[in-house]
Amino acid sequence: MGSLDKHQETIVQAEQPFNAEPPLNLLRESFVTPQQLYYVRNHGSTPEVDPADYRLAISGLVERPLELSLEQIKNEFPKETVMVTLNCAGNRREDLMKMIPMPGEIPWHAGAIGNARWSGVPLREILEAAGVKEDARHVAFEGLDEVEEGESPNFGGSVPLKKAMSPDVLLAYEMNDEPLAPKHGFPLRAVVGGYIGARSVKWLSEITVQDAPSSNYFQAKSYRLFPPYVREEPADFSKGFPLGEISVNAAICRPMEGDSLPAGPVLVQGYAIAGGERSMERVDLSTDQGQTWVATDLLEEGEGHPWAWRFWEAELQFGPGRHQIVVRAVDSAADTQPEDASSIWNFKGYVNNAWHKVTVNVR
Amino acid sequence: MGSLDKHQETIVQAEQPFNAEPPLNLLRESFVTPQQLYYVRNHGSTPEVDPADYRLAISGLVERPLELSLEQIKNEFPKETVMVTLNCAGNRREDLMKMIPMPGEIPWHAGAIGNARWSGVPLREILEAAGVKEDARHVAFEGLDEVEEGESPNFGGSVPLKKAMSPDVLLAYEMNDEPLAPKHGFPLRAVVGGYIGARSVKWLSEITVQDAPSSNYFQAKSYRLFPPYVREEPADFSKGFPLGEISVNAAICRPMEGDSLPAGPVLVQGYAIAGGERSMERVDLSTDQGQTWVATDLLEEGEGHPWAWRFWEAELQFGPGRHQIVVRAVDSAADTQPEDASSIWNFKGYVNNAWHKVTVNVR
Repeated sequence: MGSLDKHQETIVQAEQPFNAEPPLNLLRESFVTPQQLYYVRNHGSTPEVDPADYRLAISGLVERPLELSLEQIKNEFPKETVMVTLNCAGNRREDLMKMIPMPGEIPWHAGAIGNARWSGVPLREILEAAGVKEDARHVAFEGLDEVEEGESPNFGGSVPLKKAMSPDVLLAYEMNDEPLAPKHGFPLRAVVGGYIGARSVKWLSEITVQDAPSSNYFQAKSYRLFPPYVREEPADFSKGFPLGEISVNAAICRPMEGDSLPAGPVLVQGYAIAGGERSMERVDLSTDQGQTWVATDLLEEGEGHPWAWRFWEAELQFGPGRHQIVVRAVDSAADTQPEDASSIWNFKGYVNNAWHKVTVNVR
Repeated sequence: MGSLDKHQETIVQAEQPFNAEPPLNLLRESFVTPQQLYYVRNHGSTPEVDPADYRLAISGLVERPLELSLEQIKNEFPKETVMVTLNCAGNRREDLMKMIPMPGEIPWHAGAIGNARWSGVPLREILEAAGVKEDARHVAFEGLDEVEEGESPNFGGSVPLKKAMSPDVLLAYEMNDEPLAPKHGFPLRAVVGGYIGARSVKWLSEITVQDAPSSNYFQAKSYRLFPPYVREEPADFSKGFPLGEISVNAAICRPMEGDSLPAGPVLVQGYAIAGGERSMERVDLSTDQGQTWVATDLLEEGEGHPWAWRFWEAELQFGPGRHQIVVRAVDSAADTQPEDASSIWNFKGYVNNAWHKVTVNVR
């Protein structure tokens, strides 16, 4: 696949199914993440799809069930491009796993996130062509990847109809003006800004308009946030709630954990993201465990792109010794991040949005 | 005013302008807060309005500027009822003021919040009657109360047009099926669910459709969230951002701080609220400073009312001694509250949504 293969410094978290994230210093290099650096969170096989045979089925609570070829999707519907950051619900799980091990879970660092220019047809256009019935409330997606969990052979999930009808929710066939790589969902995937990455279903084959959320394992049982006092499976699933919109979060990408630096000025850089429909308003840094904070500059690239992350940076001064840098973000509703990951530990390891900390050694 | 006067146990925080909140144990008595117990946050006089002379002006980026009498508003437009909790941005400021004094600010306990059934005309109906022009982006409100701050003689604020067009945003003339009391905005007020209370402008006299937010002092300069490293006025206002949607928050109402209780089971009760368009998913209690948590029951009354708070309760067991109870809530995007108010201190004392703590003495 040439340019669509992964960068040689990619951190492969698992080969089967393939799961990988970029090192944070490379992730922070470009506001639009190249496909080669974009994280991959797969639950099953990477399907090999012949675009000539590909069909997308739309059924359920619609007036006119549809079956569309890739050519029809590209030629008979408008093409839009939207900048969207996708964020795995398990991003930053590593710090939760250090407290209590989570066998079988992927120890994501802070790189299970990426920002791309996605091009494709707004989902709304497809839904309007099919004619959504009045009692519809949710739109379920199912992919072609074969998974072992649950009753359906495929990965799936759903979003509320209100979100599905937002003009920015796409069925994308291009990522950064290239065709989707196989690992990113070729030939077609959902792209749902502001939601956990799991709802942006790849290798999309079926859209079902429903009165209830998807019953697929990855909507009904997995990707739920449990309280810290529910400890392991088999859990009572009603004690967790299904994740949808993502929470406010931020990470330090440069310097990286354990870096050795000369004394003097240090440019600290990272990303921040606001969930749902919110915007990022402020990112602060602390070098005294949160006793005091200093401002960072929120860079302009993300402005006007409501579903994109924001890059930030600040120059700090360090003398010789060991220093811990802490970051926290504040969204447009004044929601901010919890101080310590121990207070939000959950046995599936989702949504670690505690203050991100990086320790450096200054010479 | 008989039934519209304040309850005798109301905590009057200021007489001129009038500001008051209920004791938390009374606030928690009814899911729908009686007018007599509903908090009042006034910045100026309480206007005495003769309903026969009252007019509402709609102007700015509209096709047909309007001037409507109260009779027209009541008789020529549909009447809707919506359950909405309003929440002062300064609620729980008391705990921030204990760290660093804030001269002139009101030391709200956790009672600057209340839930009511509001009835009136959806703002959208009025805007559609006036015809909103294409370049409109914000809807500004101005009241009849005279204030000392800023260039306008009146209190004002604005909300984005998208929010203003939500069918649940009302111009209300009734509260809990009674006419609005003078202190609550008689004869007409805005009611904007999910937003800080300041945007629900009382004694509403002017609506201006604009391409920018209101330039009124209380939108442009006050009700901004500053970072902790900006210490006092005159501040650089660009360093704070204007508050809109409210953050996730929760408070313990019963028992109250310092209560003396017999050993044995204690029913702990409170409220929780999710900001913006989010819902409340979980409320936890801790009796060991957040090391471990236990579940509370989210009561059903608020279900199906997206702009209303949720009541919660849990039974704890206490032996003799001094015990601290801590609460924290989790919203539908998995956002939760910061641990300690010291990390979110800001010189205007807004949005204290740190874990709420109550200490009791058990005999």
